[in-house]
Amino acid sequence: LSSAYSVPRFTSDPLASAFPAQPGPPRRNAWDGVPLNGSPLDDLAAESFLQRSMSMILEEAVKKATDVRQKVCEWRSPEELKELLDLELRDGGESEAQILERCRDAIRYSVKTTHPHFFNQLYAGLEPYSMVASFITDALKPSLYTYEVSPVFTLMEDAVLRKMVQIVGWEEGDGIFNAGGSMSNMYAMNLARYRDFPEIKELGNSAAARLVVFTSQECHYSISKAAALMGIGTKNVFVVPSDKRGKMIPSALEEQIKSAKSEGAVPFIVNATAGTTVLGAFDPIDEIADICEKYKLWLHVDSVMSHLFSSHRANSVAWNPHKMLMACLQCSVFLIRDKTRLLQRCHSARASYLFQQDKFYDLSYDTGDKSVQCSRKPDAFKFWLMWKALGTRELEQRVDRALAIARSVWGNISDFAWLKPLSNFYFILLPLYLQVAPVIKERMMKKGSMMVGYQPHGGKANFFRMVVISPQVSRQDMDFVLDEIHSLGMDL
Amino acid sequence: LSSAYSVPRFTSDPLASAFPAQPGPPRRNAWDGVPLNGSPLDDLAAESFLQRSMSMILEEAVKKATDVRQKVCEWRSPEELKELLDLELRDGGESEAQILERCRDAIRYSVKTTHPHFFNQLYAGLEPYSMVASFITDALKPSLYTYEVSPVFTLMEDAVLRKMVQIVGWEEGDGIFNAGGSMSNMYAMNLARYRDFPEIKELGNSAAARLVVFTSQECHYSISKAAALMGIGTKNVFVVPSDKRGKMIPSALEEQIKSAKSEGAVPFIVNATAGTTVLGAFDPIDEIADICEKYKLWLHVDSVMSHLFSSHRANSVAWNPHKMLMACLQCSVFLIRDKTRLLQRCHSARASYLFQQDKFYDLSYDTGDKSVQCSRKPDAFKFWLMWKALGTRELEQRVDRALAIARSVWGNISDFAWLKPLSNFYFILLPLYLQVAPVIKERMMKKGSMMVGYQPHGGKANFFRMVVISPQVSRQDMDFVLDEIHSLGMDL
Repeated sequence: LSSAYSVPRFTSDPLASAFPAQPGPPRRNAWDGVPLNGSPLDDLAAESFLQRSMSMILEEAVKKATDVRQKVCEWRSPEELKELLDLELRDGGESEAQILERCRDAIRYSVKTTHPHFFNQLYAGLEPYSMVASFITDALKPSLYTYEVSPVFTLMEDAVLRKMVQIVGWEEGDGIFNAGGSMSNMYAMNLARYRDFPEIKELGNSAAARLVVFTSQECHYSISKAAALMGIGTKNVFVVPSDKRGKMIPSALEEQIKSAKSEGAVPFIVNATAGTTVLGAFDPIDEIADICEKYKLWLHVDSVMSHLFSSHRANSVAWNPHKMLMACLQCSVFLIRDKTRLLQRCHSARASYLFQQDKFYDLSYDTGDKSVQCSRKPDAFKFWLMWKALGTRELEQRVDRALAIARSVWGNISDFAWLKPLSNFYFILLPLYLQVAPVIKERMMKKGSMMVGYQPHGGKANFFRMVVISPQVSRQDMDFVLDEIHSLGMDL
Repeated sequence: LSSAYSVPRFTSDPLASAFPAQPGPPRRNAWDGVPLNGSPLDDLAAESFLQRSMSMILEEAVKKATDVRQKVCEWRSPEELKELLDLELRDGGESEAQILERCRDAIRYSVKTTHPHFFNQLYAGLEPYSMVASFITDALKPSLYTYEVSPVFTLMEDAVLRKMVQIVGWEEGDGIFNAGGSMSNMYAMNLARYRDFPEIKELGNSAAARLVVFTSQECHYSISKAAALMGIGTKNVFVVPSDKRGKMIPSALEEQIKSAKSEGAVPFIVNATAGTTVLGAFDPIDEIADICEKYKLWLHVDSVMSHLFSSHRANSVAWNPHKMLMACLQCSVFLIRDKTRLLQRCHSARASYLFQQDKFYDLSYDTGDKSVQCSRKPDAFKFWLMWKALGTRELEQRVDRALAIARSVWGNISDFAWLKPLSNFYFILLPLYLQVAPVIKERMMKKGSMMVGYQPHGGKANFFRMVVISPQVSRQDMDFVLDEIHSLGMDL
C-alpha cells in the first residue's frame, strides 16, 4: 500500500512567483522523537496478506457459503464460541498467518445467510455484482455529501433515484439511500412533520400540539422506535386493527383519525405497509390514500419487501433492494414525491466546512444536507451496478421467480397433514399446533441444515415463518425444508 | 455461486415418525409458468467475474489509489462525468466485460481518499485489515440483532465495546456501533432525555417541558440536526461561546444554564467536543464535568476525532475508529457509562418475530433492541480484526505519528511568509489573506495533485484546513503540500 515514498512526485509548474519561498530552518525528519520519513506500514506484507485473504474470502465466504451441500451454520453456544474465537484484544499484534486463521474462523462460525436453506430473515441470497460494488467502495472509502469528494457515486445515486421515482409512478421526486428501512420510516415521519409544522424544526414538539401517527397492528416496529426517538411518543402511534389476513381495515383507520381529532390530537401521517413483517400482508393502499386525501395526511408506504403496488399515490415510500433483489447489506432507499427540495429544507444544517458557497461547480450536486447523517455510504452504487448488469427485465424475472417458488409450496404442503400454509406471499407460515417450533428450531440450528424463523402471532401458538424471497432457491430447496422440518420433529 | 442443486443433500435421520408424510399430489417443477428447478444464476460466469474483479480492485482501488505517484482525483464536471459514465438503467443487461469496464471507470473517476495527498476530510489512509473485514461481512451479509443470526459478530462487538469502555476509564459501560458520529450524538441526546424523563418515550415532547441542550459554537452540526429530528428543536440548542482557540468557555456555559432555567426551560445535556471540526480544539472536559455534576446534566463527549482525554467523567462518548485509526468507513461507536441497561430500555420495541423469549440460548446476546435501527452492520469486526493484528501499542504509535507529522509542519511553515498555521493539532490551518483559496482549490482539483479543504471561519477569510490524521503520510507528503499550494497560487 501507500508505498514508494522515495519516488518522484508531481512536479510543480515552473512559473514565476509573486510569493517566493523564503529560506527557513532546514525541514525536519523527526518530531517529538517520532521518525517522519516513509510509511510506517510494511507494504509487501500488506499486499501478500490482501492477495491471500481475497482468495480465502472467495473460497470460504462466497463459494462454500452458498453451496447447498455445506451447512447453513456451525452452531456454538456463546460460551463455547468465546473460547474458540479468543476475543481478547492485547498490547501486541499477531502474525499475518494468525490473522488469516481468525478470518477463516469468523467465516466458519458465522451464519451463512446467503445459503439456499436460509429462510430466517427478510434477506437472502448473494448478488455478486452488488458484492463487487461493496468491495470497491470499501477500498475507496468514499462518503456522500459533496460532489467534490464523491463525484461518481453522487451521480449514480441521482440516476438510481430518478429511475426508482419513475417506477413508483411519480412525475417528480427525490430520495436518499440510507442505513436501513427503519431510517426510511423515520425520514417519512420527519418530512411529514416538517411539511405541516415547519416551526417544529426550530422550536421542538414541546411548543406544538400532540401529533399522532397511524399505522396497522401488523406494521414494522421501526414506526414505534421512530416515534420514540423523534419526540412524538409511542402512545401517539395509533394502532389500526388489521383483518384476519393482516391488512389494515380502512374504516377502522378513519374512525381512529376522528377519535384522535376529538381528543384534540393532530393526525399528520399514515403509515401503510406493503408486505407486513410477519404475515406478508398488503394494506389496501388505494383506500388508505383516499382517507389521507380527505384528511390531508401524509401517506407513507413502508414497502421495503415488495413491489411498489399502487405506491404512486403515496407521499413517500421506503424500499429495500437488499431484500427481494438480494443487494448486499445495506441497500435501502427512501423516496419522496416532491419538487420543493423538502429533504434539504427539513434536514439542512449548512455546515460551512463542507458546503462552501464559492465552489467552482454546480452546488446542487452537494447532497449532504438531504441527510440526517454526516458520513453516508454510497449504497446506491450496489444497486446501480447490478441493475446495469442485469437490466430491468431480469430484475423483474427474479422477483417473479421468488414469488412462484413461494406459491409452489401450496402444491406440496398437503403432503404433511400437520403443516398448513397461512399465507402464500413471500412467507410460508407453518403452524405447529404442538408448540414444538422452539425444539425443532434448536435441532435445525445444532445440525446446521437450515434456518427458518418461528414466532407466535396474535392468539396463535408458535409457527414457522419461512421467508421465501430469494430467486436463487429452487423447488428442491423448498422440498428439503418441508422434509427436514418433518424429519426433525417426527419424534415429538 | 449457489450451485450444485443436483448433488446429494443432508440426509434426514432415519427415526420413526409420529407424523408420517402422507401421499399428496406430485410436486411441481414449475409454477405460474416459471421453472423452479435449479438456480437461475450462471455460476461459472459469476465465479470468473468475481476473480477478475477482485484482481482489478486490488490493482486499481487499493494499490494505485494509495500510490503517491498517481493522481488524487481525475476531475470531471458533473456534465462531463454523466456523459462518461453512461448512467442510464435499461431494460436489458450488459456483458461481464462491460461491467468490469464500468467498475474500472467508477474507480478511475472517484476521489482517492486513501491517497497520501488527500487531506480534505476527517478520514484518510487505508487500513488493510479493516478492509478485509469489510469484504468478509459484505460477502456473508450478517446483520446484528440476534445471536442466532450473527453469533461471531455479536461477540466481537461485545469484546471491542468492553475494551473501549476500559480505555475510556469507566468501571462499567455499554455501547453500540452505529452508522456514524452523527448517530452517536443523537443516541447521547436520546439517552439523556430518557434518563431524566422516561415518560417522553411514550408521551412525546409535546407533553413535556421545553428541554435544552448546550454545546459550543465550534461543535459539529450533527448536534443541531439531532435536536431537529428528535423534536427538541434547533433553537433549544444553546450555543456556548468558545475562546480564540476554539474551546468552550466554561463560565459562559454556566451562565447559559442559569439563563435557560430562568426562562423556564429544562437543561438536560451538555455536549463537549474533543477535537472540533474546524479548529481541532478540545473543550475543557474537566471543568465542564464539574458544571454538569453541579446541575445534574448528562455530559456527552463528541470525541470522534481523538484520543479520549479525560472522557472518563462523561456519561457518554462518541468515538470513530474510522478517523485517526483509519478503519474502513464506517466504523463508529457510541459508548455509555451505565449498568442499568439504559440503551435497551430507551430503544426497545420487543418485536416478537426477532426476540422470541423461548430461545435455547442466553437472550442477553440478542442486542437488537439497543439500536434505533433494525438491520445493523457488524462494523465492530473491522476494528476487532485490526486491533488483533496490530495490538494496542501499535495503534497508539500510529496516533502519535500522525500527531507528530501534523506538528512538524510548524517547523517548515515559516518558509512561506504568506502562510501561517492557526492550530497544530490534527489540522493545519493556512490563512490566505487574498481570498485565493477557492482558486487554488479549483486548480489542485483539476490537476489532481492533492485535496485540501478550505473555508471561512468566524470573521476570518477563507483558509485551507488541512486534516492530518493518517499515520501513513510522511514528512515528504507534508513538504509536497506546502510546495504545491505555493506553486498553484504563485501567479495570483
